[in-house]
Amino acid sequence: MQEEPEHRDDCPFCEGNETQTPPEVYALRDGSEPNRPGWKVRVVPNKFAALSLSARWEVKRPEVFTTISGYGSHEVIIETPQHNQTLATLPTEQVQLVLQAVLQRMRTLAQDHRIAFVQVFRNHGAAAGTSLIHPHSQLIATPIVPTNIREEIEEARRFYDDRVTCVYCYMLAQEMESGERMVFSTDHYAVFAPFASRFPFELMILPRQHSASFVAEAREEQIAALADVLRRTLLLLYRAANNPDYNAVLHTAPLRDSCMDYYHWHIEIVPRLTTPAGFELGSGIFITTAIPEETAAYLREQLQQLSL
Amino acid sequence: MQEEPEHRDDCPFCEGNETQTPPEVYALRDGSEPNRPGWKVRVVPNKFAALSLSARWEVKRPEVFTTISGYGSHEVIIETPQHNQTLATLPTEQVQLVLQAVLQRMRTLAQDHRIAFVQVFRNHGAAAGTSLIHPHSQLIATPIVPTNIREEIEEARRFYDDRVTCVYCYMLAQEMESGERMVFSTDHYAVFAPFASRFPFELMILPRQHSASFVAEAREEQIAALADVLRRTLLLLYRAANNPDYNAVLHTAPLRDSCMDYYHWHIEIVPRLTTPAGFELGSGIFITTAIPEETAAYLREQLQQLSL
Repeated sequence: MQEEPEHRDDCPFCEGNETQTPPEVYALRDGSEPNRPGWKVRVVPNKFAALSLSARWEVKRPEVFTTISGYGSHEVIIETPQHNQTLATLPTEQVQLVLQAVLQRMRTLAQDHRIAFVQVFRNHGAAAGTSLIHPHSQLIATPIVPTNIREEIEEARRFYDDRVTCVYCYMLAQEMESGERMVFSTDHYAVFAPFASRFPFELMILPRQHSASFVAEAREEQIAALADVLRRTLLLLYRAANNPDYNAVLHTAPLRDSCMDYYHWHIEIVPRLTTPAGFELGSGIFITTAIPEETAAYLREQLQQLSL
Repeated sequence: MQEEPEHRDDCPFCEGNETQTPPEVYALRDGSEPNRPGWKVRVVPNKFAALSLSARWEVKRPEVFTTISGYGSHEVIIETPQHNQTLATLPTEQVQLVLQAVLQRMRTLAQDHRIAFVQVFRNHGAAAGTSLIHPHSQLIATPIVPTNIREEIEEARRFYDDRVTCVYCYMLAQEMESGERMVFSTDHYAVFAPFASRFPFELMILPRQHSASFVAEAREEQIAALADVLRRTLLLLYRAANNPDYNAVLHTAPLRDSCMDYYHWHIEIVPRLTTPAGFELGSGIFITTAIPEETAAYLREQLQQLSL
């Protein structure tokens, strides 16, 4: 990271190279013109987009082989004009602007009734599947609710039907009480190593107050608090685990499903220090070499030492 | 591959180094003593086993955090004494011996009523998560039915309830008829690129006759036919796709579930030419850069040219 310059002429996400990307769909600017320098955060369609809002809407069902046309959107959130930073090393205010940009795009896309879900994610490093170093996140707006989210919601609903409480709220209460997998918590958020961690250093950021949808619930004050917690969590990983490659994924309710009582939005951060192989692929069971309780204890200690 | 010697003194899976592994649980030998040279296929517990048959059987349910002790088995099937081969380059007779060894172990483990499922898989190459070059497969016998298999079965059952036919048989009929994703087929097996391929060069090997369980159904004649098909499929990938890293996974019915009518055992082969990132992790939806119809056409052509 340190060896990269602050600006590169050949990086499409660097300031001054705005013509190297498709035209922006959103930007935080102080009066400067679109697709010109002078932005703080910039959102552009992915040049190699998986989905597009200009695709024709079409569903085909020839027997079992249902296909749906590539309607949707695949966007890149360029998090800073500075090439050699990462979300962990940016000031909290900048992280807050990134979250605001994400929220704006999600709210805009939510107005399209054909969009069912917006997946927001961040790939950091080659092992996490990114090819561009310049700090960025991505969002993919899909016309269907993805399998993984659907299953998560189904399980949460089943738990609610049995116990009349949100499974995440329930889990949070236990994590807060035992503290053994807790890394840190603030008034608004808890950061902990999940009980059934799949990967070494896997972490979850969970709002302490019940809320199903990031889009529907996130207020200004909460976004500021989340920016601080997200930055600190990533900086802790950056320092205590030697800048690991990772994927961070926002899990939130589908745009048009009423699962307000039993689902709970959260962020999953999964460092890529190990390679899932045939067993994980086939079974969905993950073998990890790290004990979450030990990981949490180590991170708590580092948090103190580094005074983050 | 070509640069590796046929034998390495420091490889625990090479002939003559039998003391470098835990004692064997099974071997195909012509009268030679256990844990000595003179074997054709050898099965040993994994030195870094995820599960063990000597673990205490224990289930704990402190509220939502259920744990189960590491009861089960994690075994390595050493496929040949020769260090510098791979399953693709071995003679069919040797592949058949490997399949027989797998079958034997599955049948033995099936007698333990605490074992619910046996996952058989092969990791080829570093990107597929293997650390040892010497050709080997693995099996993990689990006390629970893995999530992915459970979901596959649930979906298959739902399809059967609606249509009164096995979804795999139904899919096979369509694939055989259209032929556009078919790579090749024999009297007993069909090899094709799945309609919803997640990865470039993903392939499925499906028995043409309905059969839920590999363990229950595989007869001698069928095993010989499968050995030939598996070897040819892997050799085709090896030659036509330049020896890609891959995971191969056997999907078969749980040992004690009666899903005979609606489940159908098969082998999934997933080359690791791309890295699943945040989107795949979060959504369960896979973006692939290859069109299965084009992959199949290319492989059919290569199959002809290479006369495999």
